[in-house]
Amino acid sequence: MGLMDEGLTQALIPLAALLGIGFALFQWFLVSRVKVSGWYGLDNGYKDKLIMDAVEPEEGVDSEDAIAKCAEIQNAISVGATSFLYTEYKYLGIFTLVFGFIMFIFLGSVNGFSTKSQPCTYNKGNLCKPALANAFFSTVAFLLGSLTSVLSGFLGMKIATFANARTTLEARKGVGKAFITAFRSGAVMGFLLAANGLLVLYVSINLFKSYYGDDWEGLYESITGYGLGGSSMALFGRVGGGIYTKAADVGADLVGKVERNIPEDDPRNPAVIADNVGDNVGDIAGMGSDLFGSYAESSCAALFVASISSIGISHDYSAMSYPLLISSMGIVVCLITTLFATDFFKIKKVTEIEPSLKRQLVISTILMTAGIAMVSFFALPSEFTLYDFGTEKTVKNWHLFFCVSIGLWAGLVIGYTTEYYTSNAYSPVQDVADSCRTGAATNVIFGLALGYKSVIIPIFAIAIAIYVSFSLAAMYGIAVAALGMLSTIATGLAIDAYGPISDNAGGIAEMAGMSHNIRKITDALDAAGNTTAAIGKGFAIGSAALVSLALFGAFVSRAGINSVDVLSPKVFIGLLVGAMLPYWFSAMTMKSVGSAALKMVEEVRRQFNTIPGLMEGTAKPDYASCVKISTDASLKAMIPPGALVMLTPLIAGTFFGVETLAGVLAGSLVSGVQVAISASNTGGAWDNAKKYIEAGASEHARTLGPKGSDAHKAAVIGDTVGDPLKDTSGPSLNILIKLMAVESLVFAPFFAAHGGLLFKWF
Amino acid sequence: MGLMDEGLTQALIPLAALLGIGFALFQWFLVSRVKVSGWYGLDNGYKDKLIMDAVEPEEGVDSEDAIAKCAEIQNAISVGATSFLYTEYKYLGIFTLVFGFIMFIFLGSVNGFSTKSQPCTYNKGNLCKPALANAFFSTVAFLLGSLTSVLSGFLGMKIATFANARTTLEARKGVGKAFITAFRSGAVMGFLLAANGLLVLYVSINLFKSYYGDDWEGLYESITGYGLGGSSMALFGRVGGGIYTKAADVGADLVGKVERNIPEDDPRNPAVIADNVGDNVGDIAGMGSDLFGSYAESSCAALFVASISSIGISHDYSAMSYPLLISSMGIVVCLITTLFATDFFKIKKVTEIEPSLKRQLVISTILMTAGIAMVSFFALPSEFTLYDFGTEKTVKNWHLFFCVSIGLWAGLVIGYTTEYYTSNAYSPVQDVADSCRTGAATNVIFGLALGYKSVIIPIFAIAIAIYVSFSLAAMYGIAVAALGMLSTIATGLAIDAYGPISDNAGGIAEMAGMSHNIRKITDALDAAGNTTAAIGKGFAIGSAALVSLALFGAFVSRAGINSVDVLSPKVFIGLLVGAMLPYWFSAMTMKSVGSAALKMVEEVRRQFNTIPGLMEGTAKPDYASCVKISTDASLKAMIPPGALVMLTPLIAGTFFGVETLAGVLAGSLVSGVQVAISASNTGGAWDNAKKYIEAGASEHARTLGPKGSDAHKAAVIGDTVGDPLKDTSGPSLNILIKLMAVESLVFAPFFAAHGGLLFKWF
Repeated sequence: MGLMDEGLTQALIPLAALLGIGFALFQWFLVSRVKVSGWYGLDNGYKDKLIMDAVEPEEGVDSEDAIAKCAEIQNAISVGATSFLYTEYKYLGIFTLVFGFIMFIFLGSVNGFSTKSQPCTYNKGNLCKPALANAFFSTVAFLLGSLTSVLSGFLGMKIATFANARTTLEARKGVGKAFITAFRSGAVMGFLLAANGLLVLYVSINLFKSYYGDDWEGLYESITGYGLGGSSMALFGRVGGGIYTKAADVGADLVGKVERNIPEDDPRNPAVIADNVGDNVGDIAGMGSDLFGSYAESSCAALFVASISSIGISHDYSAMSYPLLISSMGIVVCLITTLFATDFFKIKKVTEIEPSLKRQLVISTILMTAGIAMVSFFALPSEFTLYDFGTEKTVKNWHLFFCVSIGLWAGLVIGYTTEYYTSNAYSPVQDVADSCRTGAATNVIFGLALGYKSVIIPIFAIAIAIYVSFSLAAMYGIAVAALGMLSTIATGLAIDAYGPISDNAGGIAEMAGMSHNIRKITDALDAAGNTTAAIGKGFAIGSAALVSLALFGAFVSRAGINSVDVLSPKVFIGLLVGAMLPYWFSAMTMKSVGSAALKMVEEVRRQFNTIPGLMEGTAKPDYASCVKISTDASLKAMIPPGALVMLTPLIAGTFFGVETLAGVLAGSLVSGVQVAISASNTGGAWDNAKKYIEAGASEHARTLGPKGSDAHKAAVIGDTVGDPLKDTSGPSLNILIKLMAVESLVFAPFFAAHGGLLFKWF
Repeated sequence: MGLMDEGLTQALIPLAALLGIGFALFQWFLVSRVKVSGWYGLDNGYKDKLIMDAVEPEEGVDSEDAIAKCAEIQNAISVGATSFLYTEYKYLGIFTLVFGFIMFIFLGSVNGFSTKSQPCTYNKGNLCKPALANAFFSTVAFLLGSLTSVLSGFLGMKIATFANARTTLEARKGVGKAFITAFRSGAVMGFLLAANGLLVLYVSINLFKSYYGDDWEGLYESITGYGLGGSSMALFGRVGGGIYTKAADVGADLVGKVERNIPEDDPRNPAVIADNVGDNVGDIAGMGSDLFGSYAESSCAALFVASISSIGISHDYSAMSYPLLISSMGIVVCLITTLFATDFFKIKKVTEIEPSLKRQLVISTILMTAGIAMVSFFALPSEFTLYDFGTEKTVKNWHLFFCVSIGLWAGLVIGYTTEYYTSNAYSPVQDVADSCRTGAATNVIFGLALGYKSVIIPIFAIAIAIYVSFSLAAMYGIAVAALGMLSTIATGLAIDAYGPISDNAGGIAEMAGMSHNIRKITDALDAAGNTTAAIGKGFAIGSAALVSLALFGAFVSRAGINSVDVLSPKVFIGLLVGAMLPYWFSAMTMKSVGSAALKMVEEVRRQFNTIPGLMEGTAKPDYASCVKISTDASLKAMIPPGALVMLTPLIAGTFFGVETLAGVLAGSLVSGVQVAISASNTGGAWDNAKKYIEAGASEHARTLGPKGSDAHKAAVIGDTVGDPLKDTSGPSLNILIKLMAVESLVFAPFFAAHGGLLFKWF
């Protein structure tokens, strides 16, 4: 037994969760003190006017008028985003009920809907609850996970649309204030998500336990439904939101920037509101659901694997709660880390933004390493035994410390590599920018090559993390390594959500006609946000890879497979087809964005051509029709890729059996990771290559610019191509791999009992 | 025993090979009767002037002058290509000697360079030749394979540069004549390659047998070196040639078409000769080596697997020669098939070109199916036993008929799918063309989506072929399925080589200032060639997938691994890193093309700016400096990707052991196939979308065109991006996967004996 007793653990986990929620609410309160009104009064609740590097208000702009406009635009974005999410959630609600029903039927049928207890799988002597009960509780967990996931996305969107105009207005007082507002808002989302996820999971486990009692196998089997719920919502959120935002973005850019030569986010552009709404529903709500899904899944995978270890069998509650304790510690660590950005250091220049955000990663990683050591020492027994794939493995507590830490540090390596390949401070993006000299074609060629290249280091980092953690603690090691990478999720999400918030702030500044100075600040915030968004995606993908592998291991063990032999044709064809799925999926999402963008282009052109006075700014465009195009396109287009992901495990498992399905999972995992990383980084690099030329901050950049030069036009084309890659296809792919894995895990008893029909027939 | 006795088999194989060579020479003779001189004499040896739809010569063009110019240009291209290949082969010669030496040392060290005979691996009772002898003969086979591969590429280039101007000149007499000239020349290459490959392999086996005697295990182990030689030359040929041709092509297009607004292949463009040389060294010589490599490897894999079956152990010569007999039959079938294009039907209109080429595929497939049935019935015993991975499997002769046939038909499916996705007669390419309306960005997005989507059907076709052939005859089934797909290689190569020859013919017509009518004919030939080139790549990739799997199986069996379990971390990290290799490889090749193209652009610009009278056509450009840029860039840039491919198996095997290496092979296979197919088809689709707009053959196409319209400019950008994808990265990737597999197979005894150092140390 470990040093911590059950009571302490029972107290600490909800305490940490509540601390996180409290901290998030406090940050929200601080942000809310920025009033979306009155410039001359400067009534934002702060009394520190003297130390800020205030920007002088310019004549005629940034007036009361502009502020009123900000409020109006913010409202429009918020209403648009909320109404889209409501519509999306209506669809998702139907899906959840239908799928939940299917789940219950499938899992209930495992033992012919018998209500009798049965011998446990791993502990034959004991009696476990009937399959029907597991079906019921899995379904409940699925519904809870779905709900929490949706809530995470929704709350994130709410705070983001609450913060965007406030960031714009704070920019009048300097870069420091604006940065803190955007960052705090990101933190609200990060902490709410991490804490909610932990709390709901903790409460569910305790509730389920009141039924399951001693049957921890069944308990933690059912709880995996939570992960499935989380990720299936994330899938639709990412895909739907991704298509929404990029259809609007691409459409707005193609007509506005390229044809009409008006700036980005110009209020005359009819698609501009849809574009800004898109940032919130895609990058914020989608990302929130996604990372919540990863978190839920890695916790579930770890709990499930642990339940068939000696700590599970001997009912060592604290040791079993190790994954939850790691997450609890993560909340505390991230809380301290956040203070470094908001209180310990102040941003005074735009050049300090990116280092400050990067510092967050390093600080949280270092602190968390110490935190992991503490948790490992206090919660775990010095030694315990894992039963995995029929073998026994003795694991020491410091082994697990290494497993979690290597995941954590692999995340940092991935984050820094991503930054290197997508920030325009380094040569890769500068090379891409330079290739714009000879036009869009070389830009695209160089960008694709950069994306391919950026895969190398993350893959080695993941491979090493896998090898070490598996060697030390088998699949449990992998699951906790994934948790390690996600343990600083609150900070990761904070710097990630910071990006779209800044992007929106810039948009609002432009639309409200704020001064050039303010626009410069929001642009700088946004450029840093591009890089952090790429880092966030890197984390999401890296953790998804580890999570998927852990889920894969849990699936294999639950399905009773002893080996997944590539030499078996059943496995190999699964591997081959699985490796193809990311391409099929990307084909659908890319095409959807392209088609929706074409429709958007037509509508925007129509408005420019038919609304008199639109270009002159005397007439208002019809924003709502563009919002409607994005909404309709994304809701319709998210169904086929969603179906592909949700149905593949069911079809493969039911007709081809667990071996082929195992192949499919492994194939989609190893192939999807590459596609996802390269797509995200290519897109990020193109975006920042464009910004590099626009900013003209170096001698080299100035030879390529200014805005409107041939090189810049070529860069805009690259940026546009990158949009669906980095914000639709790429980030959805990590959900594809982990969702298929968790779905297989949940349905494993069914496949094991009734699967492989096709091979049985022939 | 089968129905055929050894003597008959011994006679039939070389007979078929000689028949193929004879037929090739006859075709060459027919092509050579087209004289590169004299228009008015029409002295081309044919007397059928009356039935041809002759194109009337236009005033002032197509004169003696133009013909002399054709001859001059042809000579320049031929000299350029020959000199590049000589230089390339010098590098390859050094590589071959060094690598051959390494091979000998590594393999010789397996038993400490002992010269004593040892017990056989699979037939413990008998004595087999020492490892040192196997090392020696493997090295000899490697050298022979390298030589044959280089010869295949070189001869292909020779006939192609011989035929290009002849095709141009024949175009004066109508599309039918031009088509036949180009097609016959392609056939020369196809038959020479298929027949030479078979003959050299046959002779080597018989020579080796005089030493090995009864030790067929050692004999066929050594002969696998032949495949390694073939594919390693192919790798450098493809990569070097691919970089050469695309650097020139991209560079020429970016300055010529985009900046200077002069047509493709305009003689004023300094890079135009390099571009045309490139077609011959990349698409022709590279492709030749590539398909020869696949052919050699699948034969070797089949022979190796068969040597440890009951037919191998009982020394049933005819049954053992089954793979060679299939190839022999393939030569006969292709010979008949060729006559359908050249003699049985005549092309009279440009619209008949593509159907005629497609008909070749169908005819050869149907005839070959009958041929396979014959060979299977006569050469094989009605039943025999395979010993694979420690299990016995009884195989009937009709099982093998199905294995070979399913490979063959899977090839047809892949070919037709490729055609559907890359020909502008169907909606996918037309959609891509349509997306050019909104600019280059949507074109690129739609093109990428098309490439991703085009992967689906081929992957299912390959998966089904693998499942069926493995179920029927284990790894032997896969190997012969690959052979089945390649059995019609002579026809496949004929229609494939037809493409670059027509491309060159068009280039020569433009450069020589031939009339518009002639240019129209060569353009039509070229458009069909684009599609057939894509089909050829589809075949190359599909067969590479099957070959690699067969080699992988042979490797696993030779390395003494019983299972490749994805759940083992050693295997899994191999899988993950292996799946990354195609990206790493593509990053290098894409970047190389991009960088070389930038240099080319600078040089072409420099010439336009500094050579007075160049644009007016009064001064000649300095073609040689562009040729030099392409040559230098490709020779330098082919080394890193080449090293990546050649060193990975050595490093993985030596330091991480055979299990990790098996993972790497499986990972690169399942991931590489997808990247290769999508890259090839995306590029092909962009190229034909551009041609669709240029040709303006439909109402829809005309709304997008004409040349020079915004949509056309967007299409040109897509085409340029596609160039390195379809002609450098994509087609090299299939060599990556099969080369790593064959190298692992050859080095397997060494890895099994001394590999996995890193895991041994820790």
